[in-house]
Amino acid sequence: MTARRAHPEPEGGGPLAVICGAGTVPFAVAEAVRRRGRPVVLFPLRGWADAAAVAGFPHHWIGVGEFGGFCQMARREGCREVVLVGGVVRPSLRQLRLDWGTVRQLPLLVRSFRGGDDHLLSGIGRMFEAAGFRLVGAHEAAPEITVAPGPLGRTRPTAAIADDIARGFALLAAMSAFDVGQAAVLAGRRVLAVEAAEGTDAMLERVAAMRASGRITLPAATGVLVKAPKRGQDLRFDMPSIGPGTVAGAAKAGLAGIAVIAGATIVAEPQRLVAEADRAGLFVVGHGAAEASVLGASADAASRVGVAGT
Amino acid sequence: MTARRAHPEPEGGGPLAVICGAGTVPFAVAEAVRRRGRPVVLFPLRGWADAAAVAGFPHHWIGVGEFGGFCQMARREGCREVVLVGGVVRPSLRQLRLDWGTVRQLPLLVRSFRGGDDHLLSGIGRMFEAAGFRLVGAHEAAPEITVAPGPLGRTRPTAAIADDIARGFALLAAMSAFDVGQAAVLAGRRVLAVEAAEGTDAMLERVAAMRASGRITLPAATGVLVKAPKRGQDLRFDMPSIGPGTVAGAAKAGLAGIAVIAGATIVAEPQRLVAEADRAGLFVVGHGAAEASVLGASADAASRVGVAGT
Repeated sequence: MTARRAHPEPEGGGPLAVICGAGTVPFAVAEAVRRRGRPVVLFPLRGWADAAAVAGFPHHWIGVGEFGGFCQMARREGCREVVLVGGVVRPSLRQLRLDWGTVRQLPLLVRSFRGGDDHLLSGIGRMFEAAGFRLVGAHEAAPEITVAPGPLGRTRPTAAIADDIARGFALLAAMSAFDVGQAAVLAGRRVLAVEAAEGTDAMLERVAAMRASGRITLPAATGVLVKAPKRGQDLRFDMPSIGPGTVAGAAKAGLAGIAVIAGATIVAEPQRLVAEADRAGLFVVGHGAAEASVLGASADAASRVGVAGT
Repeated sequence: MTARRAHPEPEGGGPLAVICGAGTVPFAVAEAVRRRGRPVVLFPLRGWADAAAVAGFPHHWIGVGEFGGFCQMARREGCREVVLVGGVVRPSLRQLRLDWGTVRQLPLLVRSFRGGDDHLLSGIGRMFEAAGFRLVGAHEAAPEITVAPGPLGRTRPTAAIADDIARGFALLAAMSAFDVGQAAVLAGRRVLAVEAAEGTDAMLERVAAMRASGRITLPAATGVLVKAPKRGQDLRFDMPSIGPGTVAGAAKAGLAGIAVIAGATIVAEPQRLVAEADRAGLFVVGHGAAEASVLGASADAASRVGVAGT
């Protein structure tokens, strides 16, 4: 979906370089690529990637500021294509220990650090391209790790929740221009929480706490977590993801389920996620991007969005 | 600013009925109205209003569901106009103990309870009007309790923060259609937090916690809390307010200041607020509503918004 610059290098071929941040998603991606018969080389980020999971793959540890070191090792391994995947909390420029390859890119990097995450990430993308690598999205390298359209487990969203799902996707679309988070919680036509820098898990904990304290007075098993990429978001840098932990968090927050964008949301550990959702009686549903009005929505458009699989 | 229905009753005259929720704002309003020479009768809500502060005024305690009781007492006191002011966490219908006057309005009330707060509040407004009362805004009864245009204390916003203020007001305007909260925190062109059901104080605590944990890595005294009414919001029901506690919360969150809409934001205890802001070195600034693009803003419009008083 994303426009890419032409490069003189041969397409594909060679192992895929996977730069790994935090969480289980990088390994789900690496495993899926390997199952497709393509070798992978992991570049786990020190302080972020899970060392135990890394051990199962060929890998080279790198620091967040060691762009030069990465380029050298990746070229030696014959990698032409790079995937960036997993969480990394935005460091301050001062916290970065930069190697020489990074320092040469410093003016670009400093400019990139001003503004929202999208801005930072597109700057980082240009650095890779300038060094001759092709940045690919995890959803391109292994489409099977993204959420398919329709319900994932046994539970299906009710007609009553359709309105909250539609409003939620429309709200996320309306906020897209502001480079905010990618998730919100709605229940009974009310917006209970909007995600920004705190992340999805912390937002779900907040909803659970508001329910426990009586600040939110709604019956149990009502409401939905909606998650979607920003309008025009470059999925090569940052794709929404859900996992068993997201389902557990949504259950603790007293929600009825989770709605995401099919094909544009990574699901880490799908079997465990479905088992957790079925056990808790939560729905997890993938909506078509057009249906969810991610590409050009307004509050009015919300009424056009239906619920997949009902 | 708000269109009002015509009523057969004589305008003004008689004491002003002030229905008091939580916080210090109801008493600031009552005190200001009394200073203007108009008597007030307080109707503090049981479980919400501060009993010690209530004691200084003529008053009748009421329960949240006792609309009939309120009407009877307010008529006996000669009140024709009513102000609703102070926080009340939205109760569940089941929690309400309804008196007969309320029960007669039940179909309207049940309908009102579906949807966002705006929806609930306009339903409540219709109940008062149907009973022959005129609902007035606190900003109409005592304009001097709202924030004036320009900086409130000694500290002024820098040119560097103007962009975050503009983006913040544009974000709030973009979310207006969704009946979400009325505040956000921005810093360095990033949206750090968006308020929904948790309230402003809890949002500021979240920013402080993210700074402490290293999730946000920004220098101290950067960023701004923006607060604004929703586009088209009926200020008679729900007006943004700030007080000394808001300044203290913003200081703990490491922000440079607070930006609100002049004339549409109540300031409780202005002297203490200014003292607190001056002590902490925070700016508190009132923007014109048009300037802040509350009435029809977009992300693009943000660049048009300047900083008052610089």
